[in-house]
Amino acid sequence: MSLHLDATHDPALRSWVASANAPGTDFPIQNLPYGRFRDLSALMAAPKATRVALRQALSAALAQHSPQQARLKDCLLAQTDAEMGLPCAIGDYTDFYTGIHHATTVGKLFRPDNPLLPNYKWVPIGYHGRSSTIVVSGTPLRRPLGQTLPPNAESPSYGPCQRLDYELELGALVGPGNSLGEPVAIAEAEDRLFGMTLLNDWSARDVQAWEYQPLGPFLAKSFGTTLSPWVVTMEALAPYRLPFQRPAGDPLPLSHLDSPANREAGAIDIALEVWLQTAAMRAAGQAAVRLSQSNFRDAYWTLAQLLTHQASNGCKLQPGDLLGTGTQSGPEPGQGGSLLELSDGGKQALTLPNGEQRRFLADGDQVILRAACERPGTARIGFGDCAGTVLPAPG
Amino acid sequence: MSLHLDATHDPALRSWVASANAPGTDFPIQNLPYGRFRDLSALMAAPKATRVALRQALSAALAQHSPQQARLKDCLLAQTDAEMGLPCAIGDYTDFYTGIHHATTVGKLFRPDNPLLPNYKWVPIGYHGRSSTIVVSGTPLRRPLGQTLPPNAESPSYGPCQRLDYELELGALVGPGNSLGEPVAIAEAEDRLFGMTLLNDWSARDVQAWEYQPLGPFLAKSFGTTLSPWVVTMEALAPYRLPFQRPAGDPLPLSHLDSPANREAGAIDIALEVWLQTAAMRAAGQAAVRLSQSNFRDAYWTLAQLLTHQASNGCKLQPGDLLGTGTQSGPEPGQGGSLLELSDGGKQALTLPNGEQRRFLADGDQVILRAACERPGTARIGFGDCAGTVLPAPG
Repeated sequence: MSLHLDATHDPALRSWVASANAPGTDFPIQNLPYGRFRDLSALMAAPKATRVALRQALSAALAQHSPQQARLKDCLLAQTDAEMGLPCAIGDYTDFYTGIHHATTVGKLFRPDNPLLPNYKWVPIGYHGRSSTIVVSGTPLRRPLGQTLPPNAESPSYGPCQRLDYELELGALVGPGNSLGEPVAIAEAEDRLFGMTLLNDWSARDVQAWEYQPLGPFLAKSFGTTLSPWVVTMEALAPYRLPFQRPAGDPLPLSHLDSPANREAGAIDIALEVWLQTAAMRAAGQAAVRLSQSNFRDAYWTLAQLLTHQASNGCKLQPGDLLGTGTQSGPEPGQGGSLLELSDGGKQALTLPNGEQRRFLADGDQVILRAACERPGTARIGFGDCAGTVLPAPG
Repeated sequence: MSLHLDATHDPALRSWVASANAPGTDFPIQNLPYGRFRDLSALMAAPKATRVALRQALSAALAQHSPQQARLKDCLLAQTDAEMGLPCAIGDYTDFYTGIHHATTVGKLFRPDNPLLPNYKWVPIGYHGRSSTIVVSGTPLRRPLGQTLPPNAESPSYGPCQRLDYELELGALVGPGNSLGEPVAIAEAEDRLFGMTLLNDWSARDVQAWEYQPLGPFLAKSFGTTLSPWVVTMEALAPYRLPFQRPAGDPLPLSHLDSPANREAGAIDIALEVWLQTAAMRAAGQAAVRLSQSNFRDAYWTLAQLLTHQASNGCKLQPGDLLGTGTQSGPEPGQGGSLLELSDGGKQALTLPNGEQRRFLADGDQVILRAACERPGTARIGFGDCAGTVLPAPG
């Protein structure tokens, strides 16, 4: 991990591409995110130095007064003319649990006597997710059917999920991988990361409550996961790195999960938001409403720790593998990154500006995740939308 | 699912290929398993009728007195001359928990007061596994490093796994898949299965005990999973189907997991064995010793139920996806499909014929899983070996 910033971060650097200079754009020339309009796999597998060289060449070519403007301007395509796919083929998807406020709040709902388990501050808790159902932003999502044990019922039944939820997460995509049996030292972990996306870990809470013991979430999660199409590179995020430290009194990470660079700049200041537009709002021409805000700097584990932990048993990571951060909730009650948290386990409905109420998602609801890094004097680095609309359950 | 047997099952059918007629062979002409010396993906994606037609053509071509003998005999390659790979590219790997004797015994070790959870007889419990570390039989396996909380320790530490174990499982490979959002009716589930392999779900028990709450097994399993290279087709297993029924007093499966065909012939009579050869035995020229025997007919859920459950929330299954059955232990104490069970959680060492003792696996141990269907008057359908040798942990 390095905090050396180069010319690609110069906030005064403007582009000859007008849309890159628009106020509030997610994608100024300092961002240069990648997306899969063409396949990214070969680039992801390349060593960090190759990626950085490409990034610097692109930045120079797109900067104002670039001599390459005449040659390049016909190669550009408006975003609206490109149909984006997933950024890459994703082999393995694992989802972590780095949001300590989320883990505590949800833990209270599932285990009131024991919200945060004894391993939480030692092990970056995670589980394997389903790769085949990861879809790109804009793909509609069918409400899943599932087996649940309704309150006070003697036996379970199978039917449409009644407690459909989103989870506000970031995803980190692996660049160069490691060989089977070879752990990755934390000092090398950041160089194995290609970049980040937004991730909506759609969740069927009623299915989850009934199925998750003893082997963890399974069908409650595997019906769909939405990714934003743009991969914001680790290089673009460099100006927004922050020191990473544990609250006083918490244990220090074990030595293989600790390094000076990780302490110095392991955290990232990424502001996160969840927006909701219901079918009624859409019909009335009303814009989406913001449900919550949080920040990735509150995560209890860094991306380098997640990657090192994942490979610590010799597990092979491959270019395009996806590491989810887990739900990013802030410390305050209104900062929950899921409806489960915002509605206190479904007990307290949220009232929307148009009078509608939500404990969980209704058919027709569109959930939009947004993220951006912003600081005066530094270029805004945005992520683009991660959106999905809920369709009714199958017949 | 169909019990109609065709000429490919005729036990009198002999081949002009001598090795197919050898007594005790796993691979008589009635088996015809597939392996990936060439890629199987296109065949796996084909509808059942195509697979069956190919199987019948191969069976006829390899049978004694086949007119094609002259043309084909130069196309055959001795098994010893072929380096086998994994049978196919595996997109998603999920592992189930259908061995009720295993679930009960292990449940007692982890939760003495609550061995079999209330959902076990209703939900085919499963979790997502790691695809990138699935290897073919014969691939050595490094003892993993991992984080554990040693007995009586105040804080965890990171080091070589001290309780390395195997798990005796079968794997089912998906043939034609389904679309995202479209469940698969149980009546169609068997036609979506291509065939079966042996599967060793290597497990780090000390890592598992510390990490598995609340999201399930993760690094305790992701360091390696071994598959046998041959896919025994569902068609070859047809003569060994058995009625599937729950013990008296147990709940019936929910209707979407129940069908007349599943009750009539959902189970499969596959005899399973675990063999162990230690480094000392190998050095002394001593053959492997059998540790346990069990049978897949004791599984609490059928393959059709697993596939239908997996797709019941709309999860997309793709050709080559792998469904593990979970550890297949028999009802008797000596029939545990893992050392965890055979050693009563590590409390009772097994003494091997050469005097060595094992509670868990030692470096140099080779574990070999074997399986076969046998009945007088019916061709023996074997699986070939699923073997792996433990290497020392990384320095």
